[in-house]
Amino acid sequence: MNKVEHIGIAVKNLEKANLIYTQLLGIEPYKTEEVPSEQVITSFFRTGESKIELLAATDETSVIAQFILKKGEGMHHVAFAVDDIVVEMARLKQAGFTLLSETPKFGADNKLICFVHPKEANGVLIELCQERK
Amino acid sequence: MNKVEHIGIAVKNLEKANLIYTQLLGIEPYKTEEVPSEQVITSFFRTGESKIELLAATDETSVIAQFILKKGEGMHHVAFAVDDIVVEMARLKQAGFTLLSETPKFGADNKLICFVHPKEANGVLIELCQERK
Repeated sequence: MNKVEHIGIAVKNLEKANLIYTQLLGIEPYKTEEVPSEQVITSFFRTGESKIELLAATDETSVIAQFILKKGEGMHHVAFAVDDIVVEMARLKQAGFTLLSETPKFGADNKLICFVHPKEANGVLIELCQERK
Repeated sequence: MNKVEHIGIAVKNLEKANLIYTQLLGIEPYKTEEVPSEQVITSFFRTGESKIELLAATDETSVIAQFILKKGEGMHHVAFAVDDIVVEMARLKQAGFTLLSETPKFGADNKLICFVHPKEANGVLIELCQERK
């Protein structure tokens, strides 16, 4: 794990949240991206070598809509940058962690991603992400 | 806000969580520190320019114990490094955010800290922190 790549925050309304985080961080989001496969629309802010990713559901069946229904708005996941996601997935599986997919998936921001189940990480949903070449 | 200084994770048992995050991150915590004023014991892991802070309550009246009782283990706050916490507090107050203390407090890891109320930040408890000189 090289660094915190981003922190994902589940929000109800992306436009309103963009205004709030623009004030909080003192910078504007550098991009907005829809991820149809996950039924979310996202925006990204840079802070040091990491990013803040705001995620809003585009459909009530989205995992983000379900998360907000259950827990309210708030921090949803933390993503760590890795050099080789396949190697890292194998290492964590070997160590007893449960991966949420058998192979890497395509994520937002040009990444290959895989989630680690929060049950073995003290309730934290962890994402591995590798830059796509 | 210069960077993500750390991500705070509320855990029930610090020793067990240290083992889990040592496996996850592939590194050991570089220190453990008790903060009697907050009734917590903490450990820190480095990842890039940021840290992961695990927090366990040392008393059932601790905010961390209360948090876990209400929401379970998981991400508790995100801390951003600032150059001048007093200036940053004034800026956020002016912008309409609610600060949880009128003046900076002494936090773990040799920091001056102040929390921003999650109600105005989409449910995220945000900490400002400045290195003490």
